[in-house]
Amino acid sequence: MAKGITPREEDYSRWYQDIVIKAELADYAPVKGCMVIRPYGFAIWEKMQAELDRMFRETGHTNAYFPLLIPESFLQKEAEHVEGFSPECAVVTHAGGSKLEEPYMIRPTSETIIWSMYRKWIQSYRDLPMLINQWCNIIRWELRTRLFLRTTEFLWQEGHTAHATEKEAEAETRQMLEVYRVFAENTMAMPVFQGLKTEREKFAGAIRTYTIEAMMQDRKALQAGTSHNLGQNFAKAFDVTFLDQDGERNYVWATSWGVSTRLIGALIMAHSDDRGLVLPPALAPTEVVIVPIYRSESEQSTVLEKCEQIRKELAARFTVKLDDRDQFKPGFKFSEWELKGVPIRCELGPRDVESGQVVLVRRDTGQKQSYPLDGVLEAVDKSLKEIQSDLFDKAIEFRGANTARIDSYDEFKEFMAADRGFALIHWAGSSADEERLQEETKATIRCIPLDAEDDPGNCILSGKPCTGRVVAAKAY
Amino acid sequence: MAKGITPREEDYSRWYQDIVIKAELADYAPVKGCMVIRPYGFAIWEKMQAELDRMFRETGHTNAYFPLLIPESFLQKEAEHVEGFSPECAVVTHAGGSKLEEPYMIRPTSETIIWSMYRKWIQSYRDLPMLINQWCNIIRWELRTRLFLRTTEFLWQEGHTAHATEKEAEAETRQMLEVYRVFAENTMAMPVFQGLKTEREKFAGAIRTYTIEAMMQDRKALQAGTSHNLGQNFAKAFDVTFLDQDGERNYVWATSWGVSTRLIGALIMAHSDDRGLVLPPALAPTEVVIVPIYRSESEQSTVLEKCEQIRKELAARFTVKLDDRDQFKPGFKFSEWELKGVPIRCELGPRDVESGQVVLVRRDTGQKQSYPLDGVLEAVDKSLKEIQSDLFDKAIEFRGANTARIDSYDEFKEFMAADRGFALIHWAGSSADEERLQEETKATIRCIPLDAEDDPGNCILSGKPCTGRVVAAKAY
Repeated sequence: MAKGITPREEDYSRWYQDIVIKAELADYAPVKGCMVIRPYGFAIWEKMQAELDRMFRETGHTNAYFPLLIPESFLQKEAEHVEGFSPECAVVTHAGGSKLEEPYMIRPTSETIIWSMYRKWIQSYRDLPMLINQWCNIIRWELRTRLFLRTTEFLWQEGHTAHATEKEAEAETRQMLEVYRVFAENTMAMPVFQGLKTEREKFAGAIRTYTIEAMMQDRKALQAGTSHNLGQNFAKAFDVTFLDQDGERNYVWATSWGVSTRLIGALIMAHSDDRGLVLPPALAPTEVVIVPIYRSESEQSTVLEKCEQIRKELAARFTVKLDDRDQFKPGFKFSEWELKGVPIRCELGPRDVESGQVVLVRRDTGQKQSYPLDGVLEAVDKSLKEIQSDLFDKAIEFRGANTARIDSYDEFKEFMAADRGFALIHWAGSSADEERLQEETKATIRCIPLDAEDDPGNCILSGKPCTGRVVAAKAY
Repeated sequence: MAKGITPREEDYSRWYQDIVIKAELADYAPVKGCMVIRPYGFAIWEKMQAELDRMFRETGHTNAYFPLLIPESFLQKEAEHVEGFSPECAVVTHAGGSKLEEPYMIRPTSETIIWSMYRKWIQSYRDLPMLINQWCNIIRWELRTRLFLRTTEFLWQEGHTAHATEKEAEAETRQMLEVYRVFAENTMAMPVFQGLKTEREKFAGAIRTYTIEAMMQDRKALQAGTSHNLGQNFAKAFDVTFLDQDGERNYVWATSWGVSTRLIGALIMAHSDDRGLVLPPALAPTEVVIVPIYRSESEQSTVLEKCEQIRKELAARFTVKLDDRDQFKPGFKFSEWELKGVPIRCELGPRDVESGQVVLVRRDTGQKQSYPLDGVLEAVDKSLKEIQSDLFDKAIEFRGANTARIDSYDEFKEFMAADRGFALIHWAGSSADEERLQEETKATIRCIPLDAEDDPGNCILSGKPCTGRVVAAKAY
């Protein structure tokens, strides 16, 4: 148990909190429900940002920045939207020493302010599509908060696009969902179900919400990203029309999509263990740490010299740290870097220098292996790739072992009461039925999978016929 | 006059606004004093961020994120700080549907919230120095706003460091000022004076504020970045002490430093002309634009094929755009890319294809030259470097021509009334004298230069003896 991390079996949520605090990913702030993202946690966010941003650009999007404050009246222009968001808003009533004529809301999401600008910028089909993304902070007043997973303020990106046709908007919505899936699976090594939200669970103001849902180690679901087809709702609310190629004036079609610092919480819960954080190499701020082992001063200088040589060689391709602090013993350093989730530890002692080899230890499996010194670059490269893919395979296997086809409501209640994971069920219930399901089992319909196989049956609650199954689970 | 840009001579501030709006750098937002940074303006900010961030890392700093909201009581802990900032604050009084017990201020700067965390994180000399930077949004309620230069909300970076000794804190303050100078001069091609602020102009809560000051084309000064030695003021206000190597408990020494999206305003005003934006290559989102010239369809295919070949070749080293829009004439495209400040335009027509050459046109000078096609990569590289250094030289020359040694108050009043630029004066006045100076001439003491030569004389207002000169000017 590194640095007193509570084991998962003993108290899962305490285990999670211990990792966040002790690996110095984040800390509690003296502001209700807010957190401070510390440098190590922020470095992970920066790696996520860099990769997502690259993917957004590749799909034709550019970044911009819109105001933090939104006039209260804007939020009210879209009926569902105001109902969904205004209870969560923080309100600025005073500024510059006096009371404001109209209060401002701190953005809980930026559809309204952005569509008020799109009205100005979009006149003709030539201005479309408009493909803009924004990286920013958001405030939603939450009662029960949890570091990274649910905080009053969080960081995110929100894409907001405008299109000439419904078909294009739907294609964009699906494309960005796919970007999120690829990011979750390839970069975070976290398998997800891709699917549609039910009416009850969709975004306030959307006509369709798509989601990616991941399984955490306590077998609960975590919504990791959403992509919304907003139809013409915001175009109508903000009167955004365009002249099409035939000279007709039409309302614009919209999408929005976002992921947030919540992904760091997902990342922690997907892979970490009782010794601390486990990071997929693609998101590790440090990929390799070199720990020198020596007992005398003469050993120290021989070993450090060789370590520095390895550091230089590896630094050409990887982010590498040489832990040459003299005041700490190797064992202490091992625990610290394990806690911080560095994927590979490279150990080097006097006997290794003599025999021209080096020991690599994998953080995820603990597997230890010697390699000849002149092959260390290839060994590290190969090992990092293996860790990345093994983490994904392990998570897929875990999800498979904890996902079951459930065919009756009684069985479902039992399954959820025992926290057994994801249930694949037939579902054709109404929003009221969903509410009952949640009240009685704490589970919700997570998504209607996009690639659901044909598997007809009857809804476990309403008995109505269905063509395939949906994913139901308790969720964060 | 591209796209109706008001000439500088006619109306300087309208010229500035025309460039911002027509080059689509930013737009007015429907929130008092706020702006929207549009994709093209934001791309310039991203280039600034990337280079500054690289320099911050090189000097040992890491990024983190602290809360947007600050409890009102925090601001009150440092007496000068609250006096300076609370009149400008936006206040959140309600959230989640009810009135808050204690109001929150939206950060006008983050010293207080950050030092409340440093109290928790700093215990011993081993925790020092703490070198953290944050990229974020800030709100200061301004009455008279101007796109980029002064807006209610702006984006910035704020570095906040903690040190064991006064000497180290002073060295950090000066080091970061130097980082800003190098960035302004090498990346923005904008020469600056580096110096100390007077008591009256220093940051609320600092013991010393250093600044870089640039001259705009209307000969006014613009404060482009500041670095503050905060002494032990915030450590005392938040009770942040550390155990030193001798086991003694001492207060920590602090610095903070920042630059903001205001730099985009500075960049525009430093180099642009009556045809639009002029960008130094180091900050241009697109370095080269290729414009094909053709009259017939057969010419079009020959020319476009060659253009695409050049685009590919240049894209390996530069950001390049091929403007192959068929609905616009070359002349229209030329104006558009001039307005947007793309440093080099590459023109290619059928005769160029035949003779195996290409025409490069510099945005800054309008200079046009032909190069053999197989040497285009080197020609572009050389030309971009020349533009970068020529822009700096031109700005230095302009500043030199509009800076004068002034030795009497009457002469000074005349100089300022005629908007003649920077005055190098002897100054030993009090804060009250400075206020009088500003009331009577609209000028302020911009800085006491760090590298001021020995040049004794008497203060133009108080008559007291001085060893060197200070920089005085009207300012943004």
